[in-house]
Amino acid sequence: MADMNDGTILQAEELIPVATESEAECLELGGAGSLARRPFDPEVLTKLLEGIQDDPSATQEYMQLGGGVPTLGIGMDACVSPLRHAGFCVVQTTDFFYPLVDDPYMQGKIACANVLSDLYAMGVTECDNMLMLMGVSTKLTDKERDVVVPLMMRGFKNGAVEAGTNVRGGQTVLNPWLTVGGVATSVCQTPEIIMPENAVPGDVLVMTKPLGTQVAVNAHQWLDMPERWNRIKLVVNEDDVRKAYNRAMDSMARLNRTAARLMHKYNAHGATDVTGFGLLGHAQNLARNQKAEVSFVIHNLPVIAKMTAVAKACGNMFQLLQGLSAETSGGLLICLPREQAAAYCKDIEKQEGYQAWIIGIVEKGNRTARIIDKPRVIEVPAKEKEGELW
Amino acid sequence: MADMNDGTILQAEELIPVATESEAECLELGGAGSLARRPFDPEVLTKLLEGIQDDPSATQEYMQLGGGVPTLGIGMDACVSPLRHAGFCVVQTTDFFYPLVDDPYMQGKIACANVLSDLYAMGVTECDNMLMLMGVSTKLTDKERDVVVPLMMRGFKNGAVEAGTNVRGGQTVLNPWLTVGGVATSVCQTPEIIMPENAVPGDVLVMTKPLGTQVAVNAHQWLDMPERWNRIKLVVNEDDVRKAYNRAMDSMARLNRTAARLMHKYNAHGATDVTGFGLLGHAQNLARNQKAEVSFVIHNLPVIAKMTAVAKACGNMFQLLQGLSAETSGGLLICLPREQAAAYCKDIEKQEGYQAWIIGIVEKGNRTARIIDKPRVIEVPAKEKEGELW
Repeated sequence: MADMNDGTILQAEELIPVATESEAECLELGGAGSLARRPFDPEVLTKLLEGIQDDPSATQEYMQLGGGVPTLGIGMDACVSPLRHAGFCVVQTTDFFYPLVDDPYMQGKIACANVLSDLYAMGVTECDNMLMLMGVSTKLTDKERDVVVPLMMRGFKNGAVEAGTNVRGGQTVLNPWLTVGGVATSVCQTPEIIMPENAVPGDVLVMTKPLGTQVAVNAHQWLDMPERWNRIKLVVNEDDVRKAYNRAMDSMARLNRTAARLMHKYNAHGATDVTGFGLLGHAQNLARNQKAEVSFVIHNLPVIAKMTAVAKACGNMFQLLQGLSAETSGGLLICLPREQAAAYCKDIEKQEGYQAWIIGIVEKGNRTARIIDKPRVIEVPAKEKEGELW
Repeated sequence: MADMNDGTILQAEELIPVATESEAECLELGGAGSLARRPFDPEVLTKLLEGIQDDPSATQEYMQLGGGVPTLGIGMDACVSPLRHAGFCVVQTTDFFYPLVDDPYMQGKIACANVLSDLYAMGVTECDNMLMLMGVSTKLTDKERDVVVPLMMRGFKNGAVEAGTNVRGGQTVLNPWLTVGGVATSVCQTPEIIMPENAVPGDVLVMTKPLGTQVAVNAHQWLDMPERWNRIKLVVNEDDVRKAYNRAMDSMARLNRTAARLMHKYNAHGATDVTGFGLLGHAQNLARNQKAEVSFVIHNLPVIAKMTAVAKACGNMFQLLQGLSAETSGGLLICLPREQAAAYCKDIEKQEGYQAWIIGIVEKGNRTARIIDKPRVIEVPAKEKEGELW
C-alpha cells in the first residue's frame, strides 16, 4: 500500500490512526469524509512526480546499461534495477503506514508483511535485507512510548524473521503521527522475478486474500463510537465485528510469500498486491502494464464475512463492491493460465490453510480492468481453519 | 544524520523546520530550548531498539552464513549484509529530514547528499539504486505544495544523478511535517568496502567539510527574528550570516563521493560521516567500533567563518566547540596513516577545490574520543575558490 510504486504514486490512503490522532486532525486531510481516505488526487501526485521521471533518452541509456536484465521504474509494486554485476538486479520497495489496529505488535507485523508484499507480487520470494522506518509520535507519553514502540518494532522484526530475512538498519524519528514501515531489498537473478506484464487472453485472475480489511478495521473502531455504531448495528452485531476484525488482522499479518512461490510453480503471467487503491485500482494498474492487448473482468468478490453488509449500511463511503475500498497488506492478484488456476488455489490452501479464489478473466482488450455489474460476493467466514475459532 | 545507524539510534536531531512548522510546535518536542534539538535521549532510544537487536545465537548463525563477507548491523553508518550470491553483500542506509533551508531544490539535494554520505563513509562509491521518501505537509496550500514538492524532488533526483545513480522508487505520504529523505543501496564486492574498524595508533584524523552548518542555518533564520538577532548582532553582521548560510548550503549539498574514492587511494583505516551527533559524537562512535585499543584526540576545529563567534554569543546552546553541534550532511571523519594524510588533503583540494584538514590523532587508548581543552579553531572563509564569491 501507499507507495510510489502503487499506481505511479504517492499517497497515504489508509490513514486510520487509532491511538495518536484525533479524528479532527484526520479530517483536516480532506477526502471522503471517513477516517479512511485517499488524500492525494492521483492526478496531483502524478504532477508532483513529474520532476523525477526520467527523460526518455536517459531511460533509453539506462535500458542499454541493463542489457538483458529487466528494468522497472516507478509505476508497479517494486522497482527493478540492473546492477553493475552481470545478471543481477536489485528489487526494492518501501512503504510506511499509520497504525490501523490497536495491537502494536500486530501493527508491526502487518507493516512488515505489507512492505514485503511488493517483492512477493514480483514473484521474488527471497528478501536479502530490511530496513525499518519508525516515526514515534510526539503525543505519546514516555510510558506509552516505552510500551508501544518496542512492541511494534518486535512485531516488524518477527515478521522479517518469519519471511527468512532480518532488519539490519533503519531510521527512527519523532513525528506528530505514529508511523511504521520499512524497506525490503532483494538482489536477484532474472529467473527469480516474474515481471507483471505477460497476461494473455484466456488467463484467469486469482486473488489470495479476502477484501474488506478497511471496513473491518473501521467497524471495530466504531464499537466505541455510538453515533457511528448506530449506523451499522442493524446489519451486524458486536461479535460479528470482533470476528471480522480478528480475521482482518490475521489476513493483514500473513505473508504473501507462499503465494509468490506458487506463482513460479504454476507459471503465473504477472501479479500485483491489492492495497491502497483497492482491488479495481490495482487491477487497472496491472492491466495498464501488460504487453499484450488485454483487459481484466472481475466477476467475484471474496469479502470478509458481514463486511459487505456493513459497507452497504455506510452508503457510498467505502465503495467496497466497486472495488475501491483500500486494503492494507491485501492478497496477490495473479494472472494465471486457466488450466493452472484451480491447482494453484488448491495448493495454497493445502500449504497454508487459507483459501484463494478465481475472481475473473483476462480477455482481449485495451489494458483496462472492470468489475461486472452485479458481482458475486463470496462471504469469507471468520472461522476458516478446522478447529480454529476467532 | 538521524539514522538508526548513527550511534545505534533513532533520532531527529536536526529539527529546524523552516517553512511549515510554527516554533511553538517545534518546542513541544522538548530539548535544548532552541529550534535545533536532539529530542531522544540516546539511552531511551537504545532501550526502544532492544526489541530488534539480534540475540547472540542468531547473530552467530548469521555470521556463519556470511562466510568471509563483512557484516555490520545497527551501530555504524550503513548496514552491510552478505547476500545469497557468493562474494557479494548489500550496503544500505536510510535517512529522512525535516527541511532546514528555505530553498526546496537545495533541500532536496542536501537530503540526497546526506543519505548517500553513509555509503561514502564506508568507502562505497557506487550506489546502485535510490528510493525517495517524501512527507508532504498537510499544512501546505495546494499552490505551495505544487511549487515546493516538485522542486524538492528534482533536487533529490539531481543529487542522485550527480552521484551516478538514480531514484527508481519510493513513497510519498501526507504528514503534518514536511519531510524528505531516501534509501541508498549498493551491491558490493568486499574490496569496495572500507570497514570502519581498523584505526591504529599513529594514524591521524582528517575531516573533509567544516563544522557549523547548524549554527549558520539558525543564524540565517534569526535574520527575521529580531529578538534572536539581537543576541548575535554584536559579533556578526547580516552579510557574514548570508555568506555563512550559503557556504553551509553548498557544503551540505556537496557529495562525499570524492572523499570516499580517495579513502581507497590513500589506504584509509575507517571513517564515519559527521551529522546529527556532532563531530565528537560521531568520533566517539567510530572509536568505539575499532578493533585495536585506540583513542581519538581532536586538536583542530575547522568552522565556517564567524560561526564560532555566533555560537559563543548563544551561550551553551550549540556546544559547537565541544563538538556536539549537530551537522547536516557533514564531512567524512577519516582515520588515515600519518604519511598519507597530507597527500589525501592535497588531492581532494586539487580535485574538488575544497580544503580538508588534519584535525587530530589516533593514539593507544580505550576506544573513546575527546577534544583537547583549547582546540585551535580554523576559520573557513565563505569565499574559498579563486574567483568565486558567495
